[in-house]
Amino acid sequence: MKDVGILVLGHGSSLPYNRELVESLAKMISKNHSGPVRTAYLNMNHPDIKEGLASFAGTNVEKIVALPLFLAHGVHTRQDIPKELGVDEQKRRGSASIGGKEVEVICAEPLGVDECIAALACKRAEEALR
Amino acid sequence: MKDVGILVLGHGSSLPYNRELVESLAKMISKNHSGPVRTAYLNMNHPDIKEGLASFAGTNVEKIVALPLFLAHGVHTRQDIPKELGVDEQKRRGSASIGGKEVEVICAEPLGVDECIAALACKRAEEALR
Repeated sequence: MKDVGILVLGHGSSLPYNRELVESLAKMISKNHSGPVRTAYLNMNHPDIKEGLASFAGTNVEKIVALPLFLAHGVHTRQDIPKELGVDEQKRRGSASIGGKEVEVICAEPLGVDECIAALACKRAEEALR
Repeated sequence: MKDVGILVLGHGSSLPYNRELVESLAKMISKNHSGPVRTAYLNMNHPDIKEGLASFAGTNVEKIVALPLFLAHGVHTRQDIPKELGVDEQKRRGSASIGGKEVEVICAEPLGVDECIAALACKRAEEALR
């Protein structure tokens, strides 16, 4: 997987918390991935998505997986992010020229429904009652 | 915990996916919680937050934990949701009159950084490469 880059995507925010979350999760993700891991933001923060793609220049990756840290699909994950990545909205795949090299770009699904999210939510409810 | 209601809060969306996620997670949460569990949305969908609070009328809950299904804090969780709940932005606590009864309302923290989110994100990246 050394030839696969992961671009961790956040929503972006005028407050610092989205960036902190995205950077922390990207560090955790990089422990499980041998290729380069970068971050980018759809709105308000930098690097933006185009800058995030460009940040793989010189890494020799053949593919980039754009990984949206969003809970559910919505206009951002269906339309805005594919558009910024320059990939087809339906196929969620395309390519980008990065450092003069053509690289495959694949947009992953959002996090979605999972028991681990429900368990984490229950933990936050319990903490609120303390 | 029968006297505690959980109001699961979603962002809301013009597309159906946020609602589907919130309802699915609320069902999972209700398996781990003996009190009533309801859903509400900040934007675009109904029940909105005030309608969500009102939906606990007749349940005899003493407290409601509002549980934002958001990954990170931002303007929505710091300002918009407390405002709609009618609770103090700093204390994240207050009360509401529900069916003629005064009920404590506590706003939980968002999901936040957790290894389970990183693991789920890695799974989505692997799926995208298949």
